Amino acid sequence: MAPALLLDVSPAPRLSKASLALTPPDTPSSTSPATTPAPLLAPWQAISAQKIADREANLQRHPEWRLASPLDPNVKHVASYPFSKLTPREREIVSLDATALTELLAIRHYSAVEVATAFCKSAAVAQDLTNCLTEIFFDEALAQAAELDRHLQETGKTVGPLHGLPVSIKDHVLLDGKDTSTGYASWAYKSVATKDAVVVSLLRKAGAVFYVKTANPQTLLSLETENNIYGRTTNPFNRTLTPGGSSGGESALIACHGSPLGVGTDIGGSIRIPAAHGGLYGLKGSVARLPHAGLLGSHDGMEAIVGCVGPLATSARDLGLFCRVMLQYEPWYIEPPLLNMPWNDDLANGKGLPSKLCFALLSDDQVVLPHPPIRAALECTKQALLAAGHEVVEWKPMDHQQAWDLIAKLYLLDGGREYYETMAESGEPPVTMSKWILDHANGREPYTVAETFRLNADREAFRARCMAHWNATAGVTSTGRPVDAILCPVAPTLAPPHGTTRWWGYTSYWNLVDYPSVVFPTGHLSSEDFSTSRAAELPIAPARNDIERYIRDQWSPQTYNGAPIALQLVGRRHEEEKLLGVLGRLEDAIRTHS
Amino acid sequence: MAPALLLDVSPAPRLSKASLALTPPDTPSSTSPATTPAPLLAPWQAISAQKIADREANLQRHPEWRLASPLDPNVKHVASYPFSKLTPREREIVSLDATALTELLAIRHYSAVEVATAFCKSAAVAQDLTNCLTEIFFDEALAQAAELDRHLQETGKTVGPLHGLPVSIKDHVLLDGKDTSTGYASWAYKSVATKDAVVVSLLRKAGAVFYVKTANPQTLLSLETENNIYGRTTNPFNRTLTPGGSSGGESALIACHGSPLGVGTDIGGSIRIPAAHGGLYGLKGSVARLPHAGLLGSHDGMEAIVGCVGPLATSARDLGLFCRVMLQYEPWYIEPPLLNMPWNDDLANGKGLPSKLCFALLSDDQVVLPHPPIRAALECTKQALLAAGHEVVEWKPMDHQQAWDLIAKLYLLDGGREYYETMAESGEPPVTMSKWILDHANGREPYTVAETFRLNADREAFRARCMAHWNATAGVTSTGRPVDAILCPVAPTLAPPHGTTRWWGYTSYWNLVDYPSVVFPTGHLSSEDFSTSRAAELPIAPARNDIERYIRDQWSPQTYNGAPIALQLVGRRHEEEKLLGVLGRLEDAIRTHS
Repeated sequence: MAPALLLDVSPAPRLSKASLALTPPDTPSSTSPATTPAPLLAPWQAISAQKIADREANLQRHPEWRLASPLDPNVKHVASYPFSKLTPREREIVSLDATALTELLAIRHYSAVEVATAFCKSAAVAQDLTNCLTEIFFDEALAQAAELDRHLQETGKTVGPLHGLPVSIKDHVLLDGKDTSTGYASWAYKSVATKDAVVVSLLRKAGAVFYVKTANPQTLLSLETENNIYGRTTNPFNRTLTPGGSSGGESALIACHGSPLGVGTDIGGSIRIPAAHGGLYGLKGSVARLPHAGLLGSHDGMEAIVGCVGPLATSARDLGLFCRVMLQYEPWYIEPPLLNMPWNDDLANGKGLPSKLCFALLSDDQVVLPHPPIRAALECTKQALLAAGHEVVEWKPMDHQQAWDLIAKLYLLDGGREYYETMAESGEPPVTMSKWILDHANGREPYTVAETFRLNADREAFRARCMAHWNATAGVTSTGRPVDAILCPVAPTLAPPHGTTRWWGYTSYWNLVDYPSVVFPTGHLSSEDFSTSRAAELPIAPARNDIERYIRDQWSPQTYNGAPIALQLVGRRHEEEKLLGVLGRLEDAIRTHS
Repeated sequence: MAPALLLDVSPAPRLSKASLALTPPDTPSSTSPATTPAPLLAPWQAISAQKIADREANLQRHPEWRLASPLDPNVKHVASYPFSKLTPREREIVSLDATALTELLAIRHYSAVEVATAFCKSAAVAQDLTNCLTEIFFDEALAQAAELDRHLQETGKTVGPLHGLPVSIKDHVLLDGKDTSTGYASWAYKSVATKDAVVVSLLRKAGAVFYVKTANPQTLLSLETENNIYGRTTNPFNRTLTPGGSSGGESALIACHGSPLGVGTDIGGSIRIPAAHGGLYGLKGSVARLPHAGLLGSHDGMEAIVGCVGPLATSARDLGLFCRVMLQYEPWYIEPPLLNMPWNDDLANGKGLPSKLCFALLSDDQVVLPHPPIRAALECTKQALLAAGHEVVEWKPMDHQQAWDLIAKLYLLDGGREYYETMAESGEPPVTMSKWILDHANGREPYTVAETFRLNADREAFRARCMAHWNATAGVTSTGRPVDAILCPVAPTLAPPHGTTRWWGYTSYWNLVDYPSVVFPTGHLSSEDFSTSRAAELPIAPARNDIERYIRDQWSPQTYNGAPIALQLVGRRHEEEKLLGVLGRLEDAIRTHS
């Protein structure tokens, strides 16, 4: 089935490979001039050119929403530029979180059309600034919003708890009628969805408005966002940095006020890393707690390590809103693998938690020491928790290198074969970070079935040890209870320069053991302030391994100027509600005591 | 570590293969004379001889509990023979269900020692009659019971909710200090447990008394119970028939009043089939609802299809008791894969269920029509349900042959390699039913990783279709709600003659889709009554396939004389409590209206 979008587009400009994949990251691909007509385009290059032209044509339906002229590529911090195109009321709208928006939409303080318009306008600018979008369908969104306004006016009732809320959707999540190219030139135009993913169908039922899909990297197995269709997505706080990945389009879009709530996915950090690098909140729940059916990706049927759908948002309470709405539809009667576990909203709001909580602090995983601003944020948060009367004990790191070695095998049970086969379909090369992760398989043969059994057993043994490790914290807390949550870094660095992400261990560890984890922002790095006050914090001890050396050598406040700082909170399996409740207490402590 | 038991045994009689594996099924192996001294025993034969000698020595510590002389092998119905060795008070004890026993133990109406003694005596006779036991340690049990009595007397408190309740444990479940040969001669003496399985540790914590482990078949992948260590276990209601498997030792033991509650496991019917063939109750819950860690078996780490631990018992309420006790210990903090889902005892007791329930009746899976007594039991139950005011609609069978073809592949992802390798360690041959199931792989190579991904995806697609099928029943019920449970056969036949089980489809289907299912007894076949009244029910249409032909040709009331009749009730995933609540209503209907 050909996508409807194709019918309207002008002929594709013929772009050379150089003008696409090699576009400088802070020059949006869509505005690149087709300077070098290439008589012999590889299949993937022709596909890329057509997809970019399609996207450009869709943006050009509303030229009045775009910046008057392309931004100087040397301008790094662009997150607030979308405001320049908005009315004061629209600025107000795009500055609210999803919870506030749904409340104000329900009482008709805002119409769905004006909310959709505000976010479409911001999204258009965000795209031109950061290259964060894939499929764009603003007019459909406005029509959907108008229909919702009509419904509310006529019936006096919202269609559901997200009535009129714009929600952005990561590219590989099926949205009926839209292409699902998933970062593969090989899949573009061949993957137009004929139905919604479960998460999308429930959002739709709840009244959400769809207007864009967002960029994800080739293979999805990347903590940056680059692919051969659209090139690289950049970080709006500093475009020389990655917004993270694989939900990096969401990160850049939401950080630019182009969406109040985004749907991401995470199998090694792909929600949490972009949330952190975008100064956002992001939740990776336990496997099968939230709807997951209806995603395209490689390795369908691979179950040794399973990903999760989850929200990226601008407030902690929006994460709870997303979960509550998903589970109120009892999706376990729709999608077989899901757990029949209703959402406990009281607990997510902190009701029933002990007044004194106990946190375990993991500040160094013994593989890669985090950069100084992250250590400083941990210390600052610890002091706030203590000042608020909570307890903070040490989390002794347990075998993080081993955890990475194991999960990297589970990611690549087939030695990467299917990834290479998919790329071969269009002749597209692996992008930088695809090559990096695929090299972990080192060209080996796929594992045998018996070997996969042993790897599964190794994973279970690791999980059992980690559970015992958590239980054993009862021996060091003053209450005699195990700790309530682990406070730790999201990554050893702030948003890295493009192509330099090297250590997943602070996020992938919690995928391996299947613990829910949530990311929350604590501020932004000002290189000027930090250089003078904290440079001395660079460690003196020699690096413990090559990765730590690489990352240590990378440290310089100037590199990360403007980048968001974020931390991670980890809970016990299936205890998403408690985790959010504990996060609420932690944020109370920070607000009051820091 | 050598098992302590070894220290006490007399030298092993030298048994030929003929006197072991070829022992007539109704002649307990342990009493077979070693008629043909074999100068060159294969390793597995020597192991078998030693294990049988060990067991015999343990039985002989209480010769006064055994039948005075071996029973005539031609006597088929032996289930009540254990009574002949019991005092009236002991008969009373072994006739009670676990719920009643725990209540009476808690108020010291019975002492733990007298309860243990009664069941040990029955178990000794059950072993001589049906060959149902593997490890026997009566004296340890009596010491444990004495300790429990002392505790209750001194403190006035029970140690837990199962204080003093004897519980029998299937051989492959780890019990600290005991061998876990698991039906493999190859593993005997090499698999002495150094810790308890989680289920055993929780039972122990709850106050259960351990006294025996029970026979399971070689490979565990069998719905009968035969192995090269002990030979065959027989059905106490008709020893020419199988007690089912793989929890067949439990079936024979509990049916002989040798245990009030047994721990079985089920990956294709291995709790439900022996429960049905023993006239018992048996529950296979959803995967990961009940503790499962600490089992020996082949294919550790295989996750394409996963088994469940569950209870076999003499009442429906005992199934709930078992679940409630397991989950009150929050085992999800002990065993990583378990679901954090507390037990809802009110619902298991029917509280909150609608007064009018709707049942779907699956009477023929379109592969193998059940034998007449099973169809009669379904019809009788249906009439009772209707008379009680419930609704009964038709469950249209959905692709049962396809479900079997798929699950048989998932059982044998490695083409059976690991089974053959394990057998090769001791040179033991596959027993009849091992050969039958292994032949399903037809000697093929192990699947590749990519093929296993596709099989997992096929399984998920099947599950999604089955879920939709259940949801669609809302269109045919009078309430507009989907049906509350499916009523169906457990198997197409009553307990089959040894070595003739040919169709797992009525049980393995629910493993494939991971729905909880429970078996309950409805009576016993009297061939005399049935021959005159029901013989006309044999179907006239030609058999639809070879298996149906085989099973149809097998039908004769005389063959199954005395065999229990049982049916199966199936619920939705993770809804074990509702399933038991619905079973309670169904049994109310039968009691009142049939």
